This record gives sequence, C-alpha cells and structure tokens, in this order.
Amino acid sequence: MSKKITTRSENYSDWYIDIVTRAQLADYAPVKGCMVIRPNGYEIWEKMQSVLDKMFKDTGHRNAYFPLLIPESFLQKEAEHVEGFAPECAVVTHGGGKKLAENLMLRPTSETIIWHMYSKWITSYRDLPLLINQWCNVLRWEMRTRLFLRTTEFLWQEGHTAHAAKEDAEEETLKMLNVYKTFAEEYMAMPVTAGLKTESEKFPGAVNTYTIEAMMQDKKALQAGTSHFLGQNFAKAFDVTFQDEAGERRHVWASSWGVSTRLIGALIMCHSDDQGLVLPPKLAARQVVIIPIWKGDDEASRVIECAHKIKEELSVKFSVHVDDRRQYKPGWKFNEWELLGIPLRIEIGPRDLESGNVVLSRRDKKEKSTVPMKSVSDETARLLETIQKDLFQRARDFREANTFLADDFQGFKERIEENGFYRIHWCGQGKCEERIKEETKATIRCIPLDAVEESGKCIVCGAASPRRVLAGRAY
Amino acid sequence: MSKKITTRSENYSDWYIDIVTRAQLADYAPVKGCMVIRPNGYEIWEKMQSVLDKMFKDTGHRNAYFPLLIPESFLQKEAEHVEGFAPECAVVTHGGGKKLAENLMLRPTSETIIWHMYSKWITSYRDLPLLINQWCNVLRWEMRTRLFLRTTEFLWQEGHTAHAAKEDAEEETLKMLNVYKTFAEEYMAMPVTAGLKTESEKFPGAVNTYTIEAMMQDKKALQAGTSHFLGQNFAKAFDVTFQDEAGERRHVWASSWGVSTRLIGALIMCHSDDQGLVLPPKLAARQVVIIPIWKGDDEASRVIECAHKIKEELSVKFSVHVDDRRQYKPGWKFNEWELLGIPLRIEIGPRDLESGNVVLSRRDKKEKSTVPMKSVSDETARLLETIQKDLFQRARDFREANTFLADDFQGFKERIEENGFYRIHWCGQGKCEERIKEETKATIRCIPLDAVEESGKCIVCGAASPRRVLAGRAY
Repeated sequence: MSKKITTRSENYSDWYIDIVTRAQLADYAPVKGCMVIRPNGYEIWEKMQSVLDKMFKDTGHRNAYFPLLIPESFLQKEAEHVEGFAPECAVVTHGGGKKLAENLMLRPTSETIIWHMYSKWITSYRDLPLLINQWCNVLRWEMRTRLFLRTTEFLWQEGHTAHAAKEDAEEETLKMLNVYKTFAEEYMAMPVTAGLKTESEKFPGAVNTYTIEAMMQDKKALQAGTSHFLGQNFAKAFDVTFQDEAGERRHVWASSWGVSTRLIGALIMCHSDDQGLVLPPKLAARQVVIIPIWKGDDEASRVIECAHKIKEELSVKFSVHVDDRRQYKPGWKFNEWELLGIPLRIEIGPRDLESGNVVLSRRDKKEKSTVPMKSVSDETARLLETIQKDLFQRARDFREANTFLADDFQGFKERIEENGFYRIHWCGQGKCEERIKEETKATIRCIPLDAVEESGKCIVCGAASPRRVLAGRAY
Repeated sequence: MSKKITTRSENYSDWYIDIVTRAQLADYAPVKGCMVIRPNGYEIWEKMQSVLDKMFKDTGHRNAYFPLLIPESFLQKEAEHVEGFAPECAVVTHGGGKKLAENLMLRPTSETIIWHMYSKWITSYRDLPLLINQWCNVLRWEMRTRLFLRTTEFLWQEGHTAHAAKEDAEEETLKMLNVYKTFAEEYMAMPVTAGLKTESEKFPGAVNTYTIEAMMQDKKALQAGTSHFLGQNFAKAFDVTFQDEAGERRHVWASSWGVSTRLIGALIMCHSDDQGLVLPPKLAARQVVIIPIWKGDDEASRVIECAHKIKEELSVKFSVHVDDRRQYKPGWKFNEWELLGIPLRIEIGPRDLESGNVVLSRRDKKEKSTVPMKSVSDETARLLETIQKDLFQRARDFREANTFLADDFQGFKERIEENGFYRIHWCGQGKCEERIKEETKATIRCIPLDAVEESGKCIVCGAASPRRVLAGRAY
C-alpha cells in the first residue's frame, strides 16, 4: 500500500496496472494472458451482473448454460465465423488419457453450439421468440493482453435470441444495445456513443454489429458492448426452421449480444485518479466507510460505539463498513479506502461526539462537509446521488471537450497524436477506412445512431458522404 | 408433453431421464458426456446459488475467479492429487494456431492454481484467514455419465480457505459441512447424513473428507456435498508460509468444499413422482400458478381479470404466474404445470367468482381445498410452508423406513439387492471395506458424525468395531 501509484501524466498504462494490482482487483495468472479476478474486483463484477441480469429478465430473457467444449466441425459451418474465430481458439485434443476422435474448441463465443441446440428445440412459431442469455467464461487466444481489457479467458454474458420475423430480430438487437447504453450511463456513470460498426469491424457471422463506445481518460476509445443482428446466417448454417401460422417452413432470424469483465477495465479507466480507484455509488459493493478516530483507549470505545450506531442507521439503505482496526492510524486508513474507491467516507472523532457532528468526505472530489449527526442518513443519500451524477457529468464534459470535427486529412493525422474523438465525413468505402487506419492508427469506431444528415466530403477521397462517423484510436 | 413419463416402478433410470428431458431441465450436448442446462433447470440452479451464496457470505467468505487453464506441472506437485485427477483431465495442447510449450489442463478442481496464487498473497498472519469461494465450471472426463448426476462438464462452487492454526482449518471444514447440511434439509427438503469418508473414499490430497449423504427414492445413496480438511498438504506442495505473531515462518492450514449442479439431480430424485417434477417451495422459481377456467369469451375475460388480481395480491410475498393462454384447455395446463413441479396451483372458474372462492391444489399430494378469496394470501403462505415441511418429513420417513441394522454378512449381501441404507460394524481396515465393495457393490458412505459408541464386531472379519458406519449402493 505504501508504494506510490504511477500518475496518469507519468505513464497512463502503468497507472492503470498499478490501480488494478494495488487495489487487488486482479492479478496475473501463471498461464500467459490469463488473469485471476480477486475479491475486490469480483465484487464489482457481481454488482454489474445483478443489475444487468435484472435488466435482461425484465426484457423477457431467461438464463441457461451451454457447454464449454465445441466440436471443431461446428465452427466450420458459418464461413465468416470460422475465419474470425478459428485462429483464436484453444484446442482440446486429449481427454481421459486418450487422443480424441475430433478436436474440441474452447468456446470463443457460443453461437455455433447454441444454434445446434436451437435446431432441436425450435419447430413451430409457438417456440418463438426464444430469448436466452448465458453467463460464462470464454477463451480467445490473444497476443497482447492487459488485465480486464483483453485477456485469454474472460467472463461475460452472451444473449442469443431467435425470432419469426426479421423486424423482431432487428428490434431485439437495438433493444439490447439500449439496455447496455442505459447500464453504462446510469450505473457505470460512463457516457457512451451508440452506433453501427462498419463492414470491416463487424462480428464474424453478423449482418450488422452495433456498439457502445466510451472515451477513457487518455482520450482513447473503448468498445464497451456489442449487439449483433445475425440475419438468418446461423439459422441457415444449422438449419433452424419453424413452421409459421400458415403452415409454411421458414428459417428463423437471430440476434446475439454481449458484455464482459472488460467493463471493469472501462470503469477504472473512466473515473479513477492518481490516488486510486473511484467507484460510482451504484456499483460499489461498499458505498460508505466509517472511520472512528481516537487517541486513548477510553476515546476509542466511545467513538467506535458511535461509528457502529451510525452504521446501523445507514445500513437500512446503504452498504456500510466500519474500519475499527486498532493497528492502523486514521491517515493510513484514509489512503487505503481512497485506493479502494469507496465513494463516501465518514470520520468521527471525540470532538465530533461532543459537538454532535460528523465529517463526510467524498472520494471523487477533495470535498469535506461537517454534518449534524441527526441528518447523516439524509446527507449520505444526497451525497451518493450527487456523486453518481457528478461522475457522469464530468466524464461527459471530458468527452465533449475532446471530441472534434475534422475535415482535413492532414490536420486529422496531426491531431490524432493526442488521441480524442473525431467526427469525420467518410464515403463508406473500405479502402478509405483502411487508409485512415494505416496512416493514423485510428479506426472508425461507429456510425452513431444519432448522427444528423449532413452532406460532406470523405476526409480521405473527397467523395460524397451523407453524415459524419466517429473515429479515434482504441483499446 | 403428451407422451407418458416412464413410471418409477417400470424403470427408475428411465423415469429420471424422462423427468429431466420432458420438464426441459437439461438436454444432451453434442460432445459425449456434456449437457445443456435449459432455462427450467438453470432457474433451479440460480435459486440454489442465491441461497448458498448468502450463506457463504454470512460466514465471511468472498467470491473470486481463478483461471480455467492449469499448467500440467501444477497438478504434479501434490502426489495424491495428481494420481486422483490426472486420468480425468481434458488437455489443451494448442492455442492460437500453435502447439503450446506446456500442456494445459482444464480444471477438474482448483486447489493447485489457487494455492499457487495464495503463495503470492499470503505473507503474514494478518493475511489469515483467507476465505475465498468461486462459482465456475469444471471438467472431469467421466466414462459413464448421466444428466446432472455425472457429466464431463458441470457447474459448482468451490471454497478454498487458508488458516494460521490447524484447529481453525478443522473448524472451517465442519462449519461448511454444516452449511451444506442446513441447505440440503431446510431448502432442498432433503434429509442428509453428515459424516467422515473412509481413507479410500477421501478427496485426493485431503487429510479428511466429510460428506453429506442423501437417500434417493430407489433407496440408493447420493453424495450431495463434500468438505475437506487439507492439512498442510497444498501449503507444502506450493510452499505457502506466513510469518506468525512471534515472527516465525510456518506453513498454513487449509480447507476446501464444494457442491455442484449434481444437487439438481438429487432434488429431482428425492421428491419427484410419476407425474413429473416436484419442487420444494423454497427452491421453486415460480411457486404458484393460477389457472383461470372458462367456457365462453365473456367468462374468459372475467376469470382472467380475477386471476391477475389474485396474482397481484400474492406477488408481494410469492412468485406467481398466471397461465391465461387461450389455445390450451385447463386439463392440459394442469398436466403441464404438474410436470414442471410448481408447488401450488390455484384454479378459478365462473362458479368460483360467484361463490367468492378459489380452489387450491397441492403438487406434492392429490389434495384440493376450497378457500374464500379473501384468505387466499394467508392460505397460500400456510400451504407453501406445509408443503416444504411435508416434503422433508416424507423423505425422512422414507429414509428411516429403509435404513437397517445389519450384523451378518450373508444376510447383508442378500438384502442389499433391494438397496437401502445399512448401519454396519466395520473394523476400519481397507481390506474389509474392499470386500464389502466387491461382494455387495455397496460402499461405506460415511462414518456418521452422530454415530453413538457401541462396541461390535466387523461384519466381514469379526474384529472389534467401536461404532456403526453407514453403507449402501450409491450413484
């Protein structure tokens, strides 16, 4: 705890890894590219899961569990899919001491195994829509990994839905994108831009991929969640048909959508500071820490007793921890809880007992306030709500301040060196997109759903463009 | 749905598989030995998880996530452990298109990877106890598999704890065994016998293994959960030491404990009948189904409206579903919800509307009662509680009626053909245990914790025995 965290201005990458390891969110596993999610990090994932799971169920989805092991031949059935995922797969060749007749892949995503099962389960329009979600681990053999952001194994949820009509599957795709956007903004306090991925950036096997893109504090983009309209690609590859009300046999329509433990990385990089983690109150497993301050033993028992009384009162609405460890000094505790990102600290000393006040200290700002003990519950509620809003507002202001219009390729190439989001005109051709990538290391993040019609000229070739797209360097 | 379920008396095994597949709890996966847990089955697992997770947290444990992939060399570090698990492992030999330098095992259990990490995290007595649990998938290459009961991949939780003193680790081992016993009896309504496994049946790498054993309706035993005192075996294999308060460096003491999706199989086999699944109210995702009954359209809208009113009232305390589908007849719906195991059915017809009554029908018994509409909430509460108790009582009576004292080996060999539990005297020698197994296909399930001292003679060799052990054929 005593070693200093690298500051963001010194080295942003080191700062990130320092936060993750010092706050004990994750650790490196012995197998390259894998991570261990430690209790402090897993607690955040549990919070995320419980909110998202409720949102999925409220929109009619049910959870299931499909196997980790996928026969190699399944992956081959959808041409784009195998091309995208086969190179990233981990392969099981032996089981129970014997060489297997067919190699088994560890799921990099579950479309193939799920659509194989759907072909057995779906026969009639009465079976549709089929709205299933799965929480599980997936494996992709990544070359360059970073804790939470890109790891060989990660945890995620993947929704897989089947519909009778094209429009229903498209509506589902956008509905779930919107669930992700709501989650990112209202719970993670992280503003995101929702939009369509370009042809070259879409999910292997999808007709359309939608994304939510967030800006990190180094002004780089992070893809935080995706939702895919799969058309009938997997239904055809796995021959999933249903009999419609007129008695005709038709292929079903599909969507899939997912977010992963990468969101923990996004959360860290969006809000944290040089003192450590900063958690939005809605995703903090512990929202308030109470730190009693004393000199002698007599004082100790009085302030500790008062601390627990306040905890009891607050625990009706909030999750509260009293740090009454006697072996550590208050200043040491302040630093530790700041490192761990607890949104609100309450300090109680002997003088506070006499005056009937406590001190409330926000994690997100260096702001303290003295509050009468009788209004501590109301004030805690007000402050936690304010912190949640302020974090979002600050992140949104930061993104706005670092989003630029760019109309000239040369100028764009120079300015992108400082990262940021750029709204540029693009003609829609792959070769211009490729040139942007090669010459700027930036990518077209998405065609925002709220992009206004505006005729302009492609920043690369000058051909006509109907609206601006969002470009930037990304994780 | 229309095909009849095989009855228990016809063929118990087929009956079980019929319940699992017809109630859509699970399905066979394309890879041999693997299963798909369908929403109806996963819902039960979610209920189990939420209860157990709270019990773990209330006893001070926190969740974490460790990697699926374990270097082959890790498994070798504990001699008994590798001998027990290496033959069951699935092996990854290739990743990202290349042959790996070292083979990776898919975790059959996580002691080795977790103790590797503990060696980095534990340095001082201040780091102890370390109380971590993990919810995850594990893989064991099984020869003979059966849905839920024994599958190549299954879901489970595994607790792994580290302690400064031997007594603390022993206390933890028994504390968690007791958590399992409480869960089995109070939530699953399944009576269990808690006891110690014999040397030959203990977990590879443990000093002692404790178990909870349940009796299924075919009078066979099912091991429902285990808790292991690991001594310092893994601490020594992975060199995990701490500095104690006196400044001395010592190896830590350990426990591990787990239950799996096998519990879903146990739940089915303990309570279900020839009509289908029977769920205890505390683990039913839907506790009450309301079925409106009508003839014409006018009647339909009136009874459906009333059904939803009752649902609204009941939903404050219970999870309630109204089945108002117009394409199915009431009788068809009765059968379907009986198949799915919903504990309580409420029927409302036009005549009930007039008389101000409804009919409540228990799933566990063929018992109906007519109840005034105004007391439906109280009566539902009373009945659900009664069902939960009655299921437990019936299962306990069944177990008692099928538990016998056996003192003569020949008689035992004959009676075991009809299964059942047998309390027998055993001298403690491996060779006598082995003979029991060979000649009866029964095993010593455990040395019950509540076994009274009673001097007797080993049923095989006649040597002195201080108390009876529990024997039976098992899953």
